[in-house]
Amino acid sequence: MKIGTFIDEKREYVIENMQPVRPLKNFVWNDVTFAELNHFCCGESKACNNNDFRPIVKDLRLVYIKDKESGEIYDANRNFKNLPFDKFHCRVGLGYQTVESAYKDLECSFTVIIPENGYMELHKATIKNTGKKPRKLSVYSYVRPFVNLNPTLACGKGSYDERVGGLFFTFHAFRCDNELTDLFYACSEPCQAYSICDGDFFGYGSYENPQYLSGAKLPSSAVVYEEDFCGAMQFDIALAPDEEKSFYFVIGVAKDEKESAEITKNCATKAFFETEYEKQKYSAESYIGKSKINTPDEYLNSMVNIWLKRQISLGKTWGRIYGKGFRDLLQDTTGFVSFGQARARERLIYTLEHQFISGNGLRQFDPVVDYPYQDMPVWIPMAVLAYIKESGDFDVLNAEVGYYDSDARESLFKHVQRGMEFLYANQGEHGLGLWRGGDWNDSINNCGLQGKGESVWLSIATVKATDDYIEILQNAPVQGANELIAEIREKQAKLKENVIAHGFEKDHFIYGINDWGEKVGSYECEEGRMYLNPQTWAIMAKIFEEDRLQALMDFVENNLKCDYGYMQNVPAYTKPNPHIGRITYMNAGIYENGSVYNHGVMFKIVADCLLGRADNAYETLKMIRYDNPLNEKSGTEPYAISNMYFGPSVYSRKGFAPCAWITGSAGWLYRAITEYILGIKADFDGLKIEPCLPSAWQEITAEREFRGAKYVISYRRGEDKGLFVDGKKMDDKKIPTFAVGTTHQVEYRY
Amino acid sequence: MKIGTFIDEKREYVIENMQPVRPLKNFVWNDVTFAELNHFCCGESKACNNNDFRPIVKDLRLVYIKDKESGEIYDANRNFKNLPFDKFHCRVGLGYQTVESAYKDLECSFTVIIPENGYMELHKATIKNTGKKPRKLSVYSYVRPFVNLNPTLACGKGSYDERVGGLFFTFHAFRCDNELTDLFYACSEPCQAYSICDGDFFGYGSYENPQYLSGAKLPSSAVVYEEDFCGAMQFDIALAPDEEKSFYFVIGVAKDEKESAEITKNCATKAFFETEYEKQKYSAESYIGKSKINTPDEYLNSMVNIWLKRQISLGKTWGRIYGKGFRDLLQDTTGFVSFGQARARERLIYTLEHQFISGNGLRQFDPVVDYPYQDMPVWIPMAVLAYIKESGDFDVLNAEVGYYDSDARESLFKHVQRGMEFLYANQGEHGLGLWRGGDWNDSINNCGLQGKGESVWLSIATVKATDDYIEILQNAPVQGANELIAEIREKQAKLKENVIAHGFEKDHFIYGINDWGEKVGSYECEEGRMYLNPQTWAIMAKIFEEDRLQALMDFVENNLKCDYGYMQNVPAYTKPNPHIGRITYMNAGIYENGSVYNHGVMFKIVADCLLGRADNAYETLKMIRYDNPLNEKSGTEPYAISNMYFGPSVYSRKGFAPCAWITGSAGWLYRAITEYILGIKADFDGLKIEPCLPSAWQEITAEREFRGAKYVISYRRGEDKGLFVDGKKMDDKKIPTFAVGTTHQVEYRY
Repeated sequence: MKIGTFIDEKREYVIENMQPVRPLKNFVWNDVTFAELNHFCCGESKACNNNDFRPIVKDLRLVYIKDKESGEIYDANRNFKNLPFDKFHCRVGLGYQTVESAYKDLECSFTVIIPENGYMELHKATIKNTGKKPRKLSVYSYVRPFVNLNPTLACGKGSYDERVGGLFFTFHAFRCDNELTDLFYACSEPCQAYSICDGDFFGYGSYENPQYLSGAKLPSSAVVYEEDFCGAMQFDIALAPDEEKSFYFVIGVAKDEKESAEITKNCATKAFFETEYEKQKYSAESYIGKSKINTPDEYLNSMVNIWLKRQISLGKTWGRIYGKGFRDLLQDTTGFVSFGQARARERLIYTLEHQFISGNGLRQFDPVVDYPYQDMPVWIPMAVLAYIKESGDFDVLNAEVGYYDSDARESLFKHVQRGMEFLYANQGEHGLGLWRGGDWNDSINNCGLQGKGESVWLSIATVKATDDYIEILQNAPVQGANELIAEIREKQAKLKENVIAHGFEKDHFIYGINDWGEKVGSYECEEGRMYLNPQTWAIMAKIFEEDRLQALMDFVENNLKCDYGYMQNVPAYTKPNPHIGRITYMNAGIYENGSVYNHGVMFKIVADCLLGRADNAYETLKMIRYDNPLNEKSGTEPYAISNMYFGPSVYSRKGFAPCAWITGSAGWLYRAITEYILGIKADFDGLKIEPCLPSAWQEITAEREFRGAKYVISYRRGEDKGLFVDGKKMDDKKIPTFAVGTTHQVEYRY
Repeated sequence: MKIGTFIDEKREYVIENMQPVRPLKNFVWNDVTFAELNHFCCGESKACNNNDFRPIVKDLRLVYIKDKESGEIYDANRNFKNLPFDKFHCRVGLGYQTVESAYKDLECSFTVIIPENGYMELHKATIKNTGKKPRKLSVYSYVRPFVNLNPTLACGKGSYDERVGGLFFTFHAFRCDNELTDLFYACSEPCQAYSICDGDFFGYGSYENPQYLSGAKLPSSAVVYEEDFCGAMQFDIALAPDEEKSFYFVIGVAKDEKESAEITKNCATKAFFETEYEKQKYSAESYIGKSKINTPDEYLNSMVNIWLKRQISLGKTWGRIYGKGFRDLLQDTTGFVSFGQARARERLIYTLEHQFISGNGLRQFDPVVDYPYQDMPVWIPMAVLAYIKESGDFDVLNAEVGYYDSDARESLFKHVQRGMEFLYANQGEHGLGLWRGGDWNDSINNCGLQGKGESVWLSIATVKATDDYIEILQNAPVQGANELIAEIREKQAKLKENVIAHGFEKDHFIYGINDWGEKVGSYECEEGRMYLNPQTWAIMAKIFEEDRLQALMDFVENNLKCDYGYMQNVPAYTKPNPHIGRITYMNAGIYENGSVYNHGVMFKIVADCLLGRADNAYETLKMIRYDNPLNEKSGTEPYAISNMYFGPSVYSRKGFAPCAWITGSAGWLYRAITEYILGIKADFDGLKIEPCLPSAWQEITAEREFRGAKYVISYRRGEDKGLFVDGKKMDDKKIPTFAVGTTHQVEYRY
């Protein structure tokens, strides 16, 4: 069954099947608050302050309507009863989400946004009488707020608060961890009654028929215990034919009643909602306008032009939602540089402030996870290089940046350098990178804690990072650059030798050698005999000459492919193995243990392009799409890439995609399509065009801003091959920079 | 509206109003597993192993029935739809709970028990066709099991397991804290289909109409992720008129599949259920038979003869459910001694194994709370004295008992002694007991952490404990007893002086003096100017001569009384005060902050009796009853005493009783009625009769076992006052001990 429709001109996806395989998600956010909304506009929202999460709404946001004459009660945005609505769909927007329904001559529209600033959400509910008879209704808003911050006793209370002009919940516990103790929920319209806890709303009833809705008024009493708090308001309205009525809500958290009252006064208004709604609606325009592609693949166009940008933008601000990962932010920032340099620069510096003075980085912050993962420095040169190439801002290397565990502040370049030094200083007996707590594969977390195990993947990634580092040194005005290059080239060459000597086995690279001297990802293993990432990264790191790399990719095609992508490892682990770690305890086919982990698939697509295997790259793209006919029940959002698909080992649900949105794949997918397939690559002094185009594609155009100028690029097969800029053939494959504000026609003939 | 009916001969309470003010609770348990059941048989169950809780069922246990001809679906034991059932009630039993319903010629009965041993629950569901037509039904059992033990990723899975013969869930995570990783749910009857997760049961529906029940079969697929797991089985049956069908379920946790399979094989059977059900039904008989009262107050009779015994029994095994408190177990054991000496002895020793070598005790274990509360030793002499008096077992003093923080093992007497030494060794500048983390009032937890603050209540309680200690020393064969008595008497006298000098203010005792030298519970305070417990305990400790104690009780009557009991403190705190602690952060009127805290009310009743204020004691008893007409919406179980009633400061819900069952009040209430009102007190060499009878009571009889003999006691007003045993007048108020198995008629004429 069709899920919905892309409406690119509105930057919307409209979900038409309201009972999809799994709830479809959208994220709305600002820098301090996010909401994870399903297609009913339900889902958790959280504020983040002082490295701590402070949830706002737990899950439900419901709009109930009661016809006061017939007594019928239904929830307009969730339809628990599965009533035959005349209309029922969800508009997934950039920064907003709207559920629209129509039932028995009443239309209801419910929208949720996060305003530009503040720890809050805004809701708008509109009810319209589309019939010929006047209607008398009770409209009930219902949210489930998060009140009890600590398991401390009897400190949560809720009541209608005159000063706040709405429902007000406080939690003033002894030694409360979070200062955002208060929660407000107010509406632009006066309510006739309210409930503060589920007992006064659902009673002994359920979602379908909340007990207290059958009465004339909600109980309107205050609540002062460890209750299941709710925020519910009742509005009694009369609607003439064609009349409509809108309600504007704000729900958020604050330090006290005074602050809450100030916010509700300004924000529970039509004016504030409409202003912020417009801001949200167009906030993405600034970066969406930076580039555009027009390939024969409409879906890819929608994704690149709109949705991936949005998903990358989420990642660069909120990491993986459950926390901000060092490597995650760097990758998403790398994906983001081409459409927001100022923001990318800020994120780069922000992330590097979580680097240790040792050169390694803190695995995750907001909240902190400090397990000794070793790969943080690998991602730094890539991000810095991408930023400088895009912006031309070499000066970023002089930016003074602090460390997580030291008062020292040093230049950003010094951070890059310390990172590289860390990688080469921490090698084991085979001259490979020490594994310690793990690397990209977070779940191989017990191979190196004793300080002996070495990771082949980490070593390969170090070789790749070294290339990026050298490229920075070669182009940036760094003192003593030549000596640094010479020195690290020598180390890189030695490392490459060691990778080949100890990491290559017959036809593939193993993942590493653990503390017990046992190989991981080797034919010697009972399970997990081969891994995807060491192969694809060996290609990115050019560990071998080209023909051997092609053979390596053949190995991937022959051994790691399934109907809907490429598996992380084969066979998936089924037996817990403490010499490897938690990956072996996970169910076979899930997460890093044998799923089609999309992040890894992206590396594979990039590697395909590096080897000129354009059709393989494109085929791979099609395999992981939501509409792959061989994986019809994946459940994934058409407008976002999920973290993974369950691997074939998940016998009952193979191909299912949980973990919506939360993945580094978005940034890599965006780059894979624009930089590797279309081949438009920022360089220090211009744009390079080095495409790797699917054979089936004929007409392709693209637009892109670069250093303030606009390039309209068309790809054309035919005679007179070469790159033409404003009609003039270029000597190399590079488009020069131009004056800010100018537009240039580029033709790539091949 | 009437809640239900006591049926003493069946040891049952039948709840007839299935929508009471709040869900009514019952507990069923063995030594390692308990379930907290509401009157729909829903609620959490937990296993306790290795000082850790391992939940089994999260909350719901539902029986859905679908008429395959009409298609109508309803849940027979919860009635979310509020259908007009012909019958719908709950039988609250000792060790079992049964919901019985009847709707459209189908009767359903659903029973939950915990068998004598093991980490499991047993359920029985019976469906009977009471109509004249044959019926074709699908019966669905639904439980919500607890599968994901840690927030570790993708380690939970569930499927139908042939070996287990039912649904089987495992959670084999890397570094899992609890070895009980597996959960089984099996039935005596083969199921035709099943669901493992809510997505495959409720789908987009809700409790009222689970989406997948409308289909012919539940999906029956396996599940392998961090899902909302459920255990649901479908049974397709046909019932002729008058035919019935029973299903016997077991749900529990184990280490592995093998262990699970062994359990389900034996336990998912009619035979096992019926045997265990009989055991549970009669397990309480052993202690219920130990005593019986027959007063003009039927409710008190039911409570003392049946329900309080059960509630005390819960406390002595499971403490306060959320954990086993040192002081809680000692008090409940004190309440329990008269009907289970062997178990009381075991509990005494078990608790004292959590004493520190310093003499103080660990506040809570299973799981551990080690905040430095100072009052643990106060409760030891009371419990030991009660046990010895009841059993005559002086030898318990020689039992070797370990310590929590030391390898030393010493006699139980030494434990008592170390406790008393701790209390006297830890005094502050006014010669009162150091307050540190707190005392009985857990929520005054920041008055003494700096080591200066002193608690007046703790000092008074020490005086009382000293009396008990001296009584032990006077009667037990302890070496050097006389010297010990002389020594501690001197200390006690000094402490009493200090209590009066520094703790008494005008007309009442303050609670203490904090680290900052500020008084708590004094007229100097803005809030919390007077507390209940220092007054009632001053009476128990005989701090003053009698007339001043009477005045103290007058103070209580005049200042701390409300319509439904006596408040812990007045006025309740409304302003957070870090110089006092979390009590001032709690909402006013809740828990220790100004509620009618029943534990404190029990002390007041005992104090009344000590002062001969019989009618006040009885009036107080009536105030806290579920049927107090001045507190009709308390919501409390008629058959159990709740922890508290919200104080009058809780403007919207004053008098409401949350926290069912979980209170030390049960033991004290039992003792207040039997030992203080009826005055039947065990002594070293016989039973004393020292009653304090309400003036309105005329005919009273009681039965009691003591040292193996049975006493049938009647109280009679009239001439020839005195105590008569088997017709013979006693010189003092004491009944001597008799041969085991003999029965004796006792008359107390007054």
